Amino acid sequence: MADIRAVQWNSANATIDLIDQTLLPTQTVDFICTDVDSLIDAIQRLVVRGAPALGAVGALGVALAMVEADREGWSEQVLQERVDAIRNARPTAVNLAWGVDRVRPSMVDGIDAVLAESAAIIAEDEAANHQLSSLGADWIMQAVERRPLRVLTHCNTGSLATTGWGTALGIIRELHARGVLELVYADETRPLLQGARLTAWELQHDGIPYVVQADGAAASTMLRGLVDVAVIGADRIARNGDTANKIGSLGVALGCAAAGIPFVVAAPSSTVDMSTVTGDDIHIELRPDDEVTTFAGILVSPPEARGFNPAFDVTPARYISAIATERAVVEPDGVSPVSALVAPADPSDVVK
Amino acid sequence: MADIRAVQWNSANATIDLIDQTLLPTQTVDFICTDVDSLIDAIQRLVVRGAPALGAVGALGVALAMVEADREGWSEQVLQERVDAIRNARPTAVNLAWGVDRVRPSMVDGIDAVLAESAAIIAEDEAANHQLSSLGADWIMQAVERRPLRVLTHCNTGSLATTGWGTALGIIRELHARGVLELVYADETRPLLQGARLTAWELQHDGIPYVVQADGAAASTMLRGLVDVAVIGADRIARNGDTANKIGSLGVALGCAAAGIPFVVAAPSSTVDMSTVTGDDIHIELRPDDEVTTFAGILVSPPEARGFNPAFDVTPARYISAIATERAVVEPDGVSPVSALVAPADPSDVVK
Repeated sequence: MADIRAVQWNSANATIDLIDQTLLPTQTVDFICTDVDSLIDAIQRLVVRGAPALGAVGALGVALAMVEADREGWSEQVLQERVDAIRNARPTAVNLAWGVDRVRPSMVDGIDAVLAESAAIIAEDEAANHQLSSLGADWIMQAVERRPLRVLTHCNTGSLATTGWGTALGIIRELHARGVLELVYADETRPLLQGARLTAWELQHDGIPYVVQADGAAASTMLRGLVDVAVIGADRIARNGDTANKIGSLGVALGCAAAGIPFVVAAPSSTVDMSTVTGDDIHIELRPDDEVTTFAGILVSPPEARGFNPAFDVTPARYISAIATERAVVEPDGVSPVSALVAPADPSDVVK
Repeated sequence: MADIRAVQWNSANATIDLIDQTLLPTQTVDFICTDVDSLIDAIQRLVVRGAPALGAVGALGVALAMVEADREGWSEQVLQERVDAIRNARPTAVNLAWGVDRVRPSMVDGIDAVLAESAAIIAEDEAANHQLSSLGADWIMQAVERRPLRVLTHCNTGSLATTGWGTALGIIRELHARGVLELVYADETRPLLQGARLTAWELQHDGIPYVVQADGAAASTMLRGLVDVAVIGADRIARNGDTANKIGSLGVALGCAAAGIPFVVAAPSSTVDMSTVTGDDIHIELRPDDEVTTFAGILVSPPEARGFNPAFDVTPARYISAIATERAVVEPDGVSPVSALVAPADPSDVVK
């Protein structure tokens, strides 16, 4: 799966080339973003999704806006407004804004400087994924005795959600590489089925044993003793450890607590937002009704039905056993400092 | 919705006429069972489902088998084997076997006697639904202060799941009739979407305000303070109060516990199985993979994907605030005797 790139800059055409994740697993088709409008459309329709991938998309989006500004003769003000529009295309994942903000200072130095900074973001993210996967796997192998391990995950956190390798799915890949993985329970992850469609596709590709289950099955699978640990990604981690992630993650956390097994969050440090004090301060994106009331274009509810469709939920830190970033693993029980997740790798700093 | 009959004996044709619940809400079509094979097919494909409705189907199924035995010249042994096949068509709901067993002694007295006993079951079930709805609504109005009430439910427990009115949905109807209901959160209930399709259809019909949400949204809807009480049905209630119900019910119970709101189970006393000691003794039906890996014939996972598809889960009694039957409401905290749920209505018996 190292060969799968969800997000790429096409330097020949000056476009952002995405794998269209709305069509997987039945079709593998590229979606070519030629301008800011098509990029925002891709972000909002979840052609590309996953917090770390959105970081790369935000950074490359600035370059794409600059290309379009040159072509269309935009004023500086219009260019900045279009960059803001990319930054705000989805509200919950901090990484999209983070990616935009990180390359913005390079705009004065031209497109090549923005592309160089974007390339750095992408390289760092993939390296971070490998590092956090290793740290997360270490923590799990110490915390859980049973071998081989049966792991539950929710949504998609693999190569498709990142710039490569993955976060929670990166930990699963690492456990598989270490020869200690028995089976993955992949929650299908309604309404958009990122688990059934994307996680299953990646696991199938890698030859990692898995089963797909309805999200509602997760709690009983855990309470029946079939799961040793659950690992999920994150869209925003607050300063106190509260974590926003795909809707349904909180239910997994409650199931872990009831079953007495660890609930592990995995994300690059760019997902930690020290300016967000608690989960109460995280804005939860409400997506269109028809993602729930229809399925693949087929109406599954009465035509008059309204859907309630929050895209994310917030898991309070008290239900989280461990959070792994590339910097550290912390146990956000009120003792471990979440700041260690974003601190320099120097151990003397982590102690502060 | 009193006019909707999911299960009816057609005396002119000697058939069991079912509303085909696999086609709702987009089509309202009858499915006519002319013989035991078509009835078992209907039960297994969930043309008819819902524990109380299956009680009626079991009873009427014995009459249908007797009609077929006359027509085909079956031996008594073949007839009994076919009745057993109906009885065992689905394993988890106790009501199917209960319905068969209740009319079986009448077989020696002929088809009319079996039909009379079946009619009694149906009349008693609908009366029981009204009574348990009233008792359950009383309990909720005493336990929850807020008005109007916001109620979460899972799967379908209305007229379609019973012989009329409903169990958990009967309580919701009762609260609506009392003028204290604000909104119903209807879990869509994957994989077969009984909530999105059937509960929404019934609520729409009755003019009760509702929204449909993904099952994974339930926990956060509750922890965000949007729900005052959750009510669900039951397929089998063990002697200690452990309750088997549609997959995903356990997650709702854990959400209620975390949110500090009541989790209420509603079922006729025929669902209480005093011969099942605890939930560990309940056999959980494992249904076909493709209910998870496909949708309306469309593959949503890689072609090689395996699904894990338990149809039910077991909620331990410690997570259940109250169980309502037509006899009583008990709080199965280890103090209230579950036996009161099936005891004669005489209060002096309940004290035992």
